[in-house]
Amino acid sequence: MNAIDLGVEFGAKTYVFWGGREGTESDATKDPITSIKRNREAMNFLCEYALDKKYDLKFALEAKPNEPRGDIYNSTTGHMLAFIATLYHPEMVGVNPEVAHEHMAGLNFTHGVAQAIDAGKLFHIDLNDQAFGRYDQDFRFGAVNLKSAFFLVKLLEDNKYDNSRHFDAHAYRTEDYEGVKDFARGCMRTYLILKNKAAQWNADQEIQSIVAEINASDGLMDQYFGKYSTAKANALKGQAFDRSAIASRGLKYERLDQLTNEVLLGVR
Amino acid sequence: MNAIDLGVEFGAKTYVFWGGREGTESDATKDPITSIKRNREAMNFLCEYALDKKYDLKFALEAKPNEPRGDIYNSTTGHMLAFIATLYHPEMVGVNPEVAHEHMAGLNFTHGVAQAIDAGKLFHIDLNDQAFGRYDQDFRFGAVNLKSAFFLVKLLEDNKYDNSRHFDAHAYRTEDYEGVKDFARGCMRTYLILKNKAAQWNADQEIQSIVAEINASDGLMDQYFGKYSTAKANALKGQAFDRSAIASRGLKYERLDQLTNEVLLGVR
Amino acid sequence: MNAIDLGVEFGAKTYVFWGGREGTESDATKDPITSIKRNREAMNFLCEYALDKKYDLKFALEAKPNEPRGDIYNSTTGHMLAFIATLYHPEMVGVNPEVAHEHMAGLNFTHGVAQAIDAGKLFHIDLNDQAFGRYDQDFRFGAVNLKSAFFLVKLLEDNKYDNSRHFDAHAYRTEDYEGVKDFARGCMRTYLILKNKAAQWNADQEIQSIVAEINASDGLMDQYFGKYSTAKANALKGQAFDRSAIASRGLKYERLDQLTNEVLLGVR
Amino acid sequence: MNAIDLGVEFGAKTYVFWGGREGTESDATKDPITSIKRNREAMNFLCEYALDKKYDLKFALEAKPNEPRGDIYNSTTGHMLAFIATLYHPEMVGVNPEVAHEHMAGLNFTHGVAQAIDAGKLFHIDLNDQAFGRYDQDFRFGAVNLKSAFFLVKLLEDNKYDNSRHFDAHAYRTEDYEGVKDFARGCMRTYLILKNKAAQWNADQEIQSIVAEINASDGLMDQYFGKYSTAKANALKGQAFDRSAIASRGLKYERLDQLTNEVLLGVR
Repeated sequence: MNAIDLGVEFGAKTYVFWGGREGTESDATKDPITSIKRNREAMNFLCEYALDKKYDLKFALEAKPNEPRGDIYNSTTGHMLAFIATLYHPEMVGVNPEVAHEHMAGLNFTHGVAQAIDAGKLFHIDLNDQAFGRYDQDFRFGAVNLKSAFFLVKLLEDNKYDNSRHFDAHAYRTEDYEGVKDFARGCMRTYLILKNKAAQWNADQEIQSIVAEINASDGLMDQYFGKYSTAKANALKGQAFDRSAIASRGLKYERLDQLTNEVLLGVR
Repeated sequence: MNAIDLGVEFGAKTYVFWGGREGTESDATKDPITSIKRNREAMNFLCEYALDKKYDLKFALEAKPNEPRGDIYNSTTGHMLAFIATLYHPEMVGVNPEVAHEHMAGLNFTHGVAQAIDAGKLFHIDLNDQAFGRYDQDFRFGAVNLKSAFFLVKLLEDNKYDNSRHFDAHAYRTEDYEGVKDFARGCMRTYLILKNKAAQWNADQEIQSIVAEINASDGLMDQYFGKYSTAKANALKGQAFDRSAIASRGLKYERLDQLTNEVLLGVR
Repeated sequence: MNAIDLGVEFGAKTYVFWGGREGTESDATKDPITSIKRNREAMNFLCEYALDKKYDLKFALEAKPNEPRGDIYNSTTGHMLAFIATLYHPEMVGVNPEVAHEHMAGLNFTHGVAQAIDAGKLFHIDLNDQAFGRYDQDFRFGAVNLKSAFFLVKLLEDNKYDNSRHFDAHAYRTEDYEGVKDFARGCMRTYLILKNKAAQWNADQEIQSIVAEINASDGLMDQYFGKYSTAKANALKGQAFDRSAIASRGLKYERLDQLTNEVLLGVR
Repeated sequence: MNAIDLGVEFGAKTYVFWGGREGTESDATKDPITSIKRNREAMNFLCEYALDKKYDLKFALEAKPNEPRGDIYNSTTGHMLAFIATLYHPEMVGVNPEVAHEHMAGLNFTHGVAQAIDAGKLFHIDLNDQAFGRYDQDFRFGAVNLKSAFFLVKLLEDNKYDNSRHFDAHAYRTEDYEGVKDFARGCMRTYLILKNKAAQWNADQEIQSIVAEINASDGLMDQYFGKYSTAKANALKGQAFDRSAIASRGLKYERLDQLTNEVLLGVR
């Protein structure tokens, strides 16, 4: 709470929690449901505290699957979003997804961030990089996988994410002072290069024509969208589908993905 | 919807959805937020349909991180719980966690199921086993890791889970008809053996005395539990902690975990 | 070399190398073939040194896939065995496989140790435990997966491994002095319990009769074993196989694996 | 053996073996050392067969850690190289590393291929792509990680690999006939683009000056290279190192890696 007070004094609008201590090495040691309840009680108390103090402050919760604990509770951004939905004041609590932490579980980071955006819960983000299924590497943004970094930047920019783009990474420990500056510049340069490439992708006529074709409705399903009605349900149950016609239409995903690679490689 | 009708006709109270087709190989091909919205629209429609038909039916959603798709949406039970919280009728939708699917992401299955129980959302469960970070192996329950299976059974039994214990596994393909029966019997036997061991663990005096000691309050924090008040917040901010005293107290986690192993190994 | 001298002075017969510094975070920084050559030059030099000093000493090389480096060279026991085969004095160099390190790569540890035994290269072993695809956890032996620990102990005992059984693990950091002793005792107790279970498995009549049945020759292939001859090759090319007869014979793997689980669980 | 005869009849100089059936789901079912011996006996027999027939043929062994078996023997290229060293005719047997298979174990593919090149054993290669710790995805070359694909292409080209560059991948199953051609073209285009980028990297003055600086000798160690002598050993033991001077020199790895990313992104 002292840290919250201090943050607010310095003008912080978002307070990030990483509950890295809250986990187990052996599930013999703690009842997991009790642990979840305690975790919730703590977050509820701190929400009430911020409200009581009339702070203009939101909380962003950061998930991590393991390390330093054997298994950390609320192990991914998905689990954290589910946890938030059970709080007294869910409206003031969102997530702070970190690339490296979701990659530790081998998950598609862009999908997790998209779910947070869809839920109105992307309050902060930690940008870095790391290989799947490894210790917490915290590499320079884009250092491991430029393509997944590209889709992430594109998602943030397309959805006009307007909070800080925080690089929670660190330079290799073989760097000197200049090397740390190289590292920091590299994070920012890669973000900006990928932002430009996202704009290029959005403006590329061949790419956009494939995207439009893929997403074009065949007219069959539009009538069922929107509000449910018994009539719609009955019609849908009677709807005929021409399986072989649907299957014969190539989706051009290979072509679209290759064009994306070529935008990334700077050869378009 | 025909499958739902058929299930209800046969007396089903729970309908399991596995959206294994809903994912991507390349994030160039679909906007993930649009995909989430479509997924939600489909679930909302089907909820309305079941309500319209006055079916006594709940839906249980099953997560999987990948395979057959490169990355499947709502990749873990956590993501699925978060998705459910955004539906029109969340009260009729829960989860169907599967051991193998969470293990594919290297996550602690027991923690995920505990979160579902805490949220009142454990509508069904798929029991099997598999190594972390592999293809979907669907091995016999307990075939890979008896200890994680034990904590799962203990969680279900301690919390009086009363829905079906469904074994979504398959025998090695080298088995004949008798071998498939061996496989099915093995799933059930292992569950029942572990259920007995959970009861033994709960009745073991040495184990329970360590559990009691670990969970004993030191009296410092009890006063802050329950409803928030400004007085509590102020008191907590002023609370002194004797770091070295707290750190000097061994938590006996190694001993407790070893005793648990010895219960499992049948040498206690 | 000072450490080697010191070890020999204290009577060491085996010197373990862990080249954890030898790796990369970015493959831009080093040519991997040059790195392999340097690594080999260093090992050759140290072998010559030990020979020159007439030390009665063997070297055991320990592989690890990553951490603290992004990727460490000679990442698994397999890679290390292959590296040893390229040294000037391969006869004095073997491996020191560590459970946790192979599990980081999600590999079956028992298979890797078997390959080392088969090659006459199991000079030392590091016993501990850890989940697949995680940071280097170094947990108590058997703490994560009792079954894989069982097969390892069985392999070592069945093959009369006669070097030290070294526990390269550490207690949870929440332990006090007594807890560290609990941890050390737990490593040893689990090893001994599993050794007894291996003997029980080897003496179990039902288990052994299935093992015998599985490994029984159908007589077809015996004639081709042993030294190659043109006559054998011709006969083998003409050998008829009755696919449906072979496929119809159940292999009882499920039953055998379940009986193994029941030995482990102490219910046989 | 019929397949070998047929291959030779069609002019094949390299025969690839993938022993994907040779593994276990449960280590109760087979003694791993016996399995290794059988595997070796089979390879020895086939080597003798090819020699007997005076075939101008080499064998290339392909490793895979799992799928369809729970755990496959000789799980990585490293294990395979070690296995080859135990054959009667190791000179005629090399490896066929596959990107996807090593990525399943989360290993750095370039390091494994470098070890094969160093050992003179890179007889064939399977190019494709896949995320770490997943089912066998067999995606288009470069589809997942352009950077690791770049280092691989650079390694092959820098070392003048002169055997076939085989794309062992398949198109997404949503593709039609034209899409499969898009896929095949994409594999080849990406390889050629990365080959050009490798040449650009090798010709880039700023990059090469950093590489030269990193690899420059400080003069201290050169005297110890080459043949061992007692004099060298004694001198090395007495060699003083100025730790703080060595540590104070930044290695410019971050800068070099970022420049590599910028070559890849086409912004240099």
